[in-house]
Amino acid sequence: MASTASRESIDILRAAITRGDRDRLAKLMEVLPHADVCPAVTRLGPEEQTRLMALLSPTQAARLLQQVAESQAAGLIEKLPSDEAAAVISRLPSREGANVVAELEARHSEAILDAMDEKVAAEIRALVHFAPDVAGGMMGTEVLAYPDHWTVAEVVDDLRRNADTYADYQVQYVFVVEDGRRLVGVLKLRDLLLGHPNTAVRQIMLPDPVAVDRLADLNEVRDIFDRYPFFGLPVVKDGMLIGMIRRAAVEAALAQRTARQFRLVQGIVGGEEFRTLPLKVRSSRRLSWLSVNILLNVLAASVIVYYEDTLASVIALAAFLPIISDMSGCSGNQAVAVSLRELSLGLVKPTEIRRVWFKEIGVGLINGLVLGVLIGLVAWLWRGNPYLGLVVGGALMINTVVAVSIGGTVPLVLKRLGFDPALASGPILTTVTDMCGFFLALGFATFMLGHL
Amino acid sequence: MASTASRESIDILRAAITRGDRDRLAKLMEVLPHADVCPAVTRLGPEEQTRLMALLSPTQAARLLQQVAESQAAGLIEKLPSDEAAAVISRLPSREGANVVAELEARHSEAILDAMDEKVAAEIRALVHFAPDVAGGMMGTEVLAYPDHWTVAEVVDDLRRNADTYADYQVQYVFVVEDGRRLVGVLKLRDLLLGHPNTAVRQIMLPDPVAVDRLADLNEVRDIFDRYPFFGLPVVKDGMLIGMIRRAAVEAALAQRTARQFRLVQGIVGGEEFRTLPLKVRSSRRLSWLSVNILLNVLAASVIVYYEDTLASVIALAAFLPIISDMSGCSGNQAVAVSLRELSLGLVKPTEIRRVWFKEIGVGLINGLVLGVLIGLVAWLWRGNPYLGLVVGGALMINTVVAVSIGGTVPLVLKRLGFDPALASGPILTTVTDMCGFFLALGFATFMLGHL
Repeated sequence: MASTASRESIDILRAAITRGDRDRLAKLMEVLPHADVCPAVTRLGPEEQTRLMALLSPTQAARLLQQVAESQAAGLIEKLPSDEAAAVISRLPSREGANVVAELEARHSEAILDAMDEKVAAEIRALVHFAPDVAGGMMGTEVLAYPDHWTVAEVVDDLRRNADTYADYQVQYVFVVEDGRRLVGVLKLRDLLLGHPNTAVRQIMLPDPVAVDRLADLNEVRDIFDRYPFFGLPVVKDGMLIGMIRRAAVEAALAQRTARQFRLVQGIVGGEEFRTLPLKVRSSRRLSWLSVNILLNVLAASVIVYYEDTLASVIALAAFLPIISDMSGCSGNQAVAVSLRELSLGLVKPTEIRRVWFKEIGVGLINGLVLGVLIGLVAWLWRGNPYLGLVVGGALMINTVVAVSIGGTVPLVLKRLGFDPALASGPILTTVTDMCGFFLALGFATFMLGHL
Repeated sequence: MASTASRESIDILRAAITRGDRDRLAKLMEVLPHADVCPAVTRLGPEEQTRLMALLSPTQAARLLQQVAESQAAGLIEKLPSDEAAAVISRLPSREGANVVAELEARHSEAILDAMDEKVAAEIRALVHFAPDVAGGMMGTEVLAYPDHWTVAEVVDDLRRNADTYADYQVQYVFVVEDGRRLVGVLKLRDLLLGHPNTAVRQIMLPDPVAVDRLADLNEVRDIFDRYPFFGLPVVKDGMLIGMIRRAAVEAALAQRTARQFRLVQGIVGGEEFRTLPLKVRSSRRLSWLSVNILLNVLAASVIVYYEDTLASVIALAAFLPIISDMSGCSGNQAVAVSLRELSLGLVKPTEIRRVWFKEIGVGLINGLVLGVLIGLVAWLWRGNPYLGLVVGGALMINTVVAVSIGGTVPLVLKRLGFDPALASGPILTTVTDMCGFFLALGFATFMLGHL
């Protein structure tokens, strides 16, 4: 049923685009269920998307862009001539505008920024410049700030006169500045509501507000929001107010970090994949990672080739090699997941490698023992040879300790070296644990060849 | 350096706890860097945590609980006698209080709720009742609501008199109700600020505010926040106002969903793991998943055992079986990641299995061809036998298509059946693709035995 509704929405949208019916489209953007608009638009063909964008007013187009993922928004904006694209992006909140511009190819973004009002363009250029996980990369520039000598009446009057402009500001706080933009205090709307009209705002403001430097990193910003019940946090550069971070932006950045790590662990590199992208893009992005992985797999398999004589004598081992490889990978990935989580919660510092290692060795010994005994019994019972059980079980036991040691500590090492710690999950872990596991199993088997 | 600072914080905290120095502890909770407090507290021994909680005032304890993860907060609250725990939880915002109570064992939570003020307890019971991914499970009960016949002056007066109580409400919106709690409008603080004192609020309110039913699911709530620039969204039951969802709570719920899926994919089940948990808990939780996995692995390996005669004749194949297993798993996991992402963004509906399958077959054919040719060439060159290359390459090629088909569609199927779609990544996918891959490689080899 849900699927039918969605298909209908696409058809209705498509019909309006084909007819070039602006009024109908404007109406549709209002009335279609939001859950339908987003998938419907992404499923339109490239030319239909171009026509749709051309038919919408800048304000309508801006509203549409806010409803789709940023990479998709960039795809839509590229359908427009630079001057129209500039008009649309100018209508987005500064942060959202910068995020879309950041997704564009350089030649597109330059042309669009050039076509824009100079002041707005400068603001967006400044925002794009920041990494997404520092304060500057999460802030918007829409902040209300008044000189400290203004009175409550003057501020209220300004708020009243510019109510329309400020409607987009979504702020609960009004900041107080001196000497231009130096942040000295904060006013709650509530305080303005209750304050005497002739009081200077400096007298009712909360002085020395908590603020964050534009280069503070995501964890630092999150810590402040954890600590205080703020909606928004002012961002400063050398004490000057340059923007504000909303709580929701921090939560979104944290969610994006987890999602990015998740994709990386699952082998999605080179940008987020949507099934609406061209087949060539989808398959080549996935291949870029798979082809590295297959080379590493061949490397690991060379250990097996090296021991082929042993394997030929004990053909029963062949069935256990993939088990050892998979189980060690699983144990290692569990350790990676715990380290990633603890790193992102700030519960562990990248320097505490030894502490994490010791903690993992405990788990590795217990789980290695249990899994080793289990698989050893299977091998013994299956083949009626206790020595085979000893070889297979011993190899898995030791390799589990190796896998959790690597899995637990490599994310910390990568983090210290400035890489994304989620990189640890995939190729590095699997290749090393595979090689080690094959080496242990086939090495033990060679040693015990007389009994097997 | 960071590590040293943190170790110092623990030592200072520990010393104050040992001396039972309440004033010092109160001060420490204020001045210690937040980034240090959280890991320091989690690393205290169980008795030290008990002493710490006993030494803090209810307000200080409540502030501490807001700084740690909910499962950890629950661990801390369990250290207190029921009546003191009740005092602490009563001081948390309703949503946070309910989240902590939800983490407690039933016998603890019942005792604590019984010791609480009846009205507060009833509120928390009502909140705990909701799943974390429906509107009721994200809302807090702190909402400001006034009868529609009240005047601006009356509302402002109430806000002024109760400024202290409302300080925690963090609301930008004031709701207007009639007949008790029926939601009929919303007032912005700004409107109150600018409205004439003698006007009835019903005249300046925005009527028919967007609201959401208490049972609306996470995606629906997110869609509304995507569509409107709201800070908070009122939650109703049969039209009656019962709470409000803050934008940040939705972002947090989305982040938690991704994190939960991530953990599941990485084999962390039975609750989030912290390395400060006892070794027994950590190893047994990880084992619960590993032991299922090892059984499935044995199942998959039975295919190899079945074809052991073939393998004995073509021992060179043994090195390629783990490669086929690992590479197919990787291809499948990529498809799972894309499906999970598209499901959570609402870009695909659980019923669109065929569409996803066709999209995946395209990728599978291209990538299978590339990977199959690659590994086929490796096998040929390594062994000087083109037929071995054909067997290995052909098996990987076909199995890549199988893996992406399963990986892409199983999340949708699981979602339709009401399970967490992330379950698809692990055991199901690996077992089926392993069995299929081994069967293809060894089946082809048996067929071509004369040439190998």
